[in-house]
Amino acid sequence: PPGRKVLIVYAHQEPKSLNGSLKRIAVEELSKQGCSVTVSDLYAMQFEPRATRNDIVGCLHNSEEFNYGVETREAYKRGCLSNDLIEEQKKVQEADLLIFQFPLYWFSMPAIMKGWMDRVLVQGFAHEFPNCYDSGLLKNKLALFSFTTGGSKEMYAKGGISGDIRYLLWPIQHGIMHFCGVKVLAPHICFAPEYVSEEKRKEMLIAWAQRLKTLWKEEPINCSPEWYFK
Amino acid sequence: PPGRKVLIVYAHQEPKSLNGSLKRIAVEELSKQGCSVTVSDLYAMQFEPRATRNDIVGCLHNSEEFNYGVETREAYKRGCLSNDLIEEQKKVQEADLLIFQFPLYWFSMPAIMKGWMDRVLVQGFAHEFPNCYDSGLLKNKLALFSFTTGGSKEMYAKGGISGDIRYLLWPIQHGIMHFCGVKVLAPHICFAPEYVSEEKRKEMLIAWAQRLKTLWKEEPINCSPEWYFK
Repeated sequence: PPGRKVLIVYAHQEPKSLNGSLKRIAVEELSKQGCSVTVSDLYAMQFEPRATRNDIVGCLHNSEEFNYGVETREAYKRGCLSNDLIEEQKKVQEADLLIFQFPLYWFSMPAIMKGWMDRVLVQGFAHEFPNCYDSGLLKNKLALFSFTTGGSKEMYAKGGISGDIRYLLWPIQHGIMHFCGVKVLAPHICFAPEYVSEEKRKEMLIAWAQRLKTLWKEEPINCSPEWYFK
Repeated sequence: PPGRKVLIVYAHQEPKSLNGSLKRIAVEELSKQGCSVTVSDLYAMQFEPRATRNDIVGCLHNSEEFNYGVETREAYKRGCLSNDLIEEQKKVQEADLLIFQFPLYWFSMPAIMKGWMDRVLVQGFAHEFPNCYDSGLLKNKLALFSFTTGGSKEMYAKGGISGDIRYLLWPIQHGIMHFCGVKVLAPHICFAPEYVSEEKRKEMLIAWAQRLKTLWKEEPINCSPEWYFK
């Protein structure tokens, strides 16, 4: 609906890829709905995935023994995080919906996107004990993981060689997004686009555009072990 | 035993950390046994986690549309992967045992280590359909994930707020190591070292040293859904 804000965190090297098309379609469709859409194109930004001392501007809280979690928590409080992190946190803060668009690498997101999670979702900003899970600091936001796979739907079925695709969603949907209080919409998965026809790939794009039309009416999943492992 | 080769892939910024001590203890204990031990200290190496065109030296297989998986597979065949990847692959090739030592970040490994997986375990080197899972190209090797957590053992119990710790091991143990044919030893987990006494942390180090003494007699886990989700 008009006025809603969407952040798309996008991790693919090639604009001509299916991931690139899925990202473009989301920008177009959501903009058409009157949403304001921002894209963090991680490879194009050469986003830094490594969690290092460089993320803190100026002095450390404890320069004797570097603890990344403690240092970024303290730097967040003092407003001393590096600029690239402050920029990303602003985008997250303003967003009603976060869409993560990526090719599945090794049962998870590519390292460049894992680095976005590691570095942006700082304690004090995204969570602060006991404000985690349902009371995480990013509550009232939605997230959606949209990704492509190498393996087929059959490989990722329960009893398939790679196991139910939901098994690998646990760390990213529950461990990251739910931990921060974000409600999670059903994932959007394009299975093995490299091994299907051009025709089939077009259908994948159309299906995504269709889903986006009614996305705001969707109910979040019940992010509990039952959803993942039943 | 004498002659065995071990590669420790280590991801912590601070040598004085518990992870740093765990790594040092492994080097000492395994060397004492007569093993030859190599360490990839990822932060010290400023290891690149991003999967980009820079991983291929010279011309691309398809310069019209960049596909990272295809390009690295072809570059591996031609011997045209970047030097840092060739170095890591040599270390993996020679190793009988891979130990991954890291602090758990967001239910997974830090991005810098995920980047090591994304970039080093190239198709043709680590797997090559249908040589995956039990027939993966790195069969006859062992892997062990040794990590520290922020959350307590109770939080990571079945029925705990963060779910059974085994749920989050599925993508890394099964999705990565088992996929490449590597057999997996039981994980070594130090729960919440930041919230226990100095005394308790010392016990954690001793327990690790003890385990290492009989490590080569251990049987791998049965890397099937039952182990993770029963």
